[in-house]
Amino acid sequence: MPCLGILGGGQLARMLALKAHEMGVPVRVFCQSENEPAALVTAKPFIGQLDSATDLKEFLKSVDVATFESEFLNAELLASLSRELKIPIYPDPKHMGQLQDRLTQKLLLLENKIPTARFLEVRNFADLLEAWDEFHKQGLVLKKRRFGYDGYGTYIVKNFSELLDLEATIEKERFGFIAEEFVSFKRELAVMVTRNRNHEITVLPFVESLQKNSKCFWVKGPINKPEFKKIGKRLKSFLEDIKYVGIMGIEFFDTSDGLIVNEIAPRVHNSGHYSLDALTEDQFTLHIKAVLGFKSAKVKLLSPGFAMVNLLGTSTLAPIWQLPAEVKLHWYGKSENRRGRKMGHYNILDKNPNTALKRGLAALKNFQL
Amino acid sequence: MPCLGILGGGQLARMLALKAHEMGVPVRVFCQSENEPAALVTAKPFIGQLDSATDLKEFLKSVDVATFESEFLNAELLASLSRELKIPIYPDPKHMGQLQDRLTQKLLLLENKIPTARFLEVRNFADLLEAWDEFHKQGLVLKKRRFGYDGYGTYIVKNFSELLDLEATIEKERFGFIAEEFVSFKRELAVMVTRNRNHEITVLPFVESLQKNSKCFWVKGPINKPEFKKIGKRLKSFLEDIKYVGIMGIEFFDTSDGLIVNEIAPRVHNSGHYSLDALTEDQFTLHIKAVLGFKSAKVKLLSPGFAMVNLLGTSTLAPIWQLPAEVKLHWYGKSENRRGRKMGHYNILDKNPNTALKRGLAALKNFQL
Repeated sequence: MPCLGILGGGQLARMLALKAHEMGVPVRVFCQSENEPAALVTAKPFIGQLDSATDLKEFLKSVDVATFESEFLNAELLASLSRELKIPIYPDPKHMGQLQDRLTQKLLLLENKIPTARFLEVRNFADLLEAWDEFHKQGLVLKKRRFGYDGYGTYIVKNFSELLDLEATIEKERFGFIAEEFVSFKRELAVMVTRNRNHEITVLPFVESLQKNSKCFWVKGPINKPEFKKIGKRLKSFLEDIKYVGIMGIEFFDTSDGLIVNEIAPRVHNSGHYSLDALTEDQFTLHIKAVLGFKSAKVKLLSPGFAMVNLLGTSTLAPIWQLPAEVKLHWYGKSENRRGRKMGHYNILDKNPNTALKRGLAALKNFQL
Repeated sequence: MPCLGILGGGQLARMLALKAHEMGVPVRVFCQSENEPAALVTAKPFIGQLDSATDLKEFLKSVDVATFESEFLNAELLASLSRELKIPIYPDPKHMGQLQDRLTQKLLLLENKIPTARFLEVRNFADLLEAWDEFHKQGLVLKKRRFGYDGYGTYIVKNFSELLDLEATIEKERFGFIAEEFVSFKRELAVMVTRNRNHEITVLPFVESLQKNSKCFWVKGPINKPEFKKIGKRLKSFLEDIKYVGIMGIEFFDTSDGLIVNEIAPRVHNSGHYSLDALTEDQFTLHIKAVLGFKSAKVKLLSPGFAMVNLLGTSTLAPIWQLPAEVKLHWYGKSENRRGRKMGHYNILDKNPNTALKRGLAALKNFQL
C-alpha cells in the first residue's frame, strides 16, 4: 500500500488523515508544529517548514505520493522536487501554481470557457483607475493575486473615494492584483468535482453557502436546477482537458444571467464538509482515491436534505458537548480558540435543505454563549 | 475537554480513537507495541504491558477517564487502581470481571432473567460426566471460563467418546469450565445496547450474523420481529439495574422457543461494525458519548438494508484497492497478515438486508484471490 504524504497540518489535512486511516492508507503529514490538528491524529508527523526546500525534500523522500491542503505553497519548487525525486504530487503543482494566483486562475477559466466575472490586471494605481473606468457602473472588487482567502486581500469598491483610499495598499503589494466587475447575486453556490488518475470524474451535489465576514458560515443542499447539469458537464470537460487529478472546489455566484464562477480551489474545501455525513462517499475519501488511482463508486445522498454549520471561534466558546446530540460534530482540536477561527463544524440531516439548516442554526445557540 | 484513555491497541481501540478524533475528544491509547492498529492513528501512544500494575498506573494517571477494548484484563487490579487514582473506568471493572468469566456471566444473566442455555459448572472431569448425564440428549458444549473468544476454548461434544477425549484438556486448565446444553438454532442474531452516565439507554437494530470457523464472517440487518421489542426492554432494564455504563454487545441464538442469549461482551463488538456506515451514530461514537456522559441522539438507519463482511487474512491477500468501490472499507493496518486474522471489514448499503449481503459477498471475490 503506497504511503500518502499530506503537505500541511490544519483541519483539512486532519480530515484527510482520518479518512486515510479508515481506508488503511498509510499516511504522513507535514506539519509546522506538533500541536497542529493533523499532527494530533497521526503517529509520526513530520515537523518542518513548508517553505524549506530541504524539509520538503526530506518529507517527499519518505512517501510514495503526495497531496496538499493549501494551494499557497511554492508550486515551482514542488514541481521540481517531484520531478527530481520521482514522487508524484496531485493535484499537479502546475495546477497549484495556476490556481494560487487569481490572474492565472482567471485566464485558465477564460481559456476553458467557464463563465466568470469580467476582470482586469492591476499592477499599479493607474491600472486601478482604468479598471474603474471600465467597471464603475456595477462597482469593482479589488483582489490580491496571491494568498487571498476567506476575504483576506479582497476590497469591495463602491465609489471613487473608496478607490482613492487604496493607493497605498496597491503600491506596497508585491504580487499585484486583479480588479473584477462587482457581481450582484441572489446567492452563492458551490460544487465539488473530482477526477482520478484513471479518468473517472464525479460531480457532487450543488450546495448553497452563506459567508459571514467573508468566511463560510453555513452550507445547505442539495440544490437542484436544470441548468446545473450543463455546468456540471462543462466542469467535467475542464478537468479532463487540463488532466487534473484530485478534488476541486468551485464557488459560484447565482445571478440573473445564470451561474458564474467566483473562484476555484485545487483541494478539499469547506463547502464540501457536508459530505462527511450526507453522502455515501465523502470529499476526503474521494480525493484520496483520486490521488492514489483507486476506483470511485457512484456517490449517493444519504438524506434528502443536509446542512453544515461552521463553528467559528468566539470569546465565549461553550464546551462542545453542549451541542445537541443530533448534530454530527467534526472538531479540529486546535490548541487556541481565536475569534472567527474555524474550530470545527457539524452536519445535520433532514427531509429537505431548509429544515436541515433551520435545525442546524438552532443548534448553534448552544455553542456561542 | 476530558482526555479518554483506551486500554488496548487493536482494531476496536483504533476505531474508538478515530471517532474520538472526529469528535475532538483528546485520546490516549495503551498499546503493547508501536505497530498496533491504534498506535498508528494517534500522536503519542503509551507503550506498556497490560498486565503490569506499574504501567497501568502510569497510564491511568495521564487520562481523565478510561475504557477498554477487551474484557480480558485484570479487573480487580483495574478496580483498585481506579479507586486509588480517582480515575473512572467505564464499563465498571466490576462488570468486566463478571463478564470475562463465563460462569459469573451466566449467573448474572440468570439473576437478571435473561434467557440463556442451561449450564453447569465444570471444575474437573467428574463434573463433566455429571453434565453429560444432564445434557447428553441435546449434546453438550464445553467452554473455558476465561479467555475464550472467537471459538477458542470451546468444545462441542456430540458423543461419549468425544467426551472422554477432553479429560486431559480439563485437568490442565487453571480457571475451569462451564458445560452448556447444546442449543440448535435457526440463525444467530446480535444487538448492541448502550447506556450512558446520565441513564439514557439506546438499543440499536437487531442483526443476523454468520460465523465461519467460530469467527464472525458477515452481519446483515436490520432484522425485525415483534418479539425483539420485549427482549430489547428486558436488556434495557438489565443495563439500568446493574448501572452499566458504555456499550454492550449481545449475541443470541434464534431457536424454536425464541431468542436465548449466547454471550455478552462489555465493549464495542464486531457485530456492531455495520453502524459505521448504516446508522446516524456508530457504536464507537455512542460508546465514547456514554463513557464521557455526553448526550446521545435518537439513532436512525441511513439505509433500509445493510451488510458487513469481515476481511479475514488469507495466504493470498489481494491489494485492498481491488475491492469494488461501492463498499465502505475499514482497514485495521495490522502489520502481519495471518490466516483467519481479522484484517478489516467493509459495509455495504442496499434496499434490504439480503441484497446488501449478496453484493457484499460478491465483492469478497476480489479480495480472496
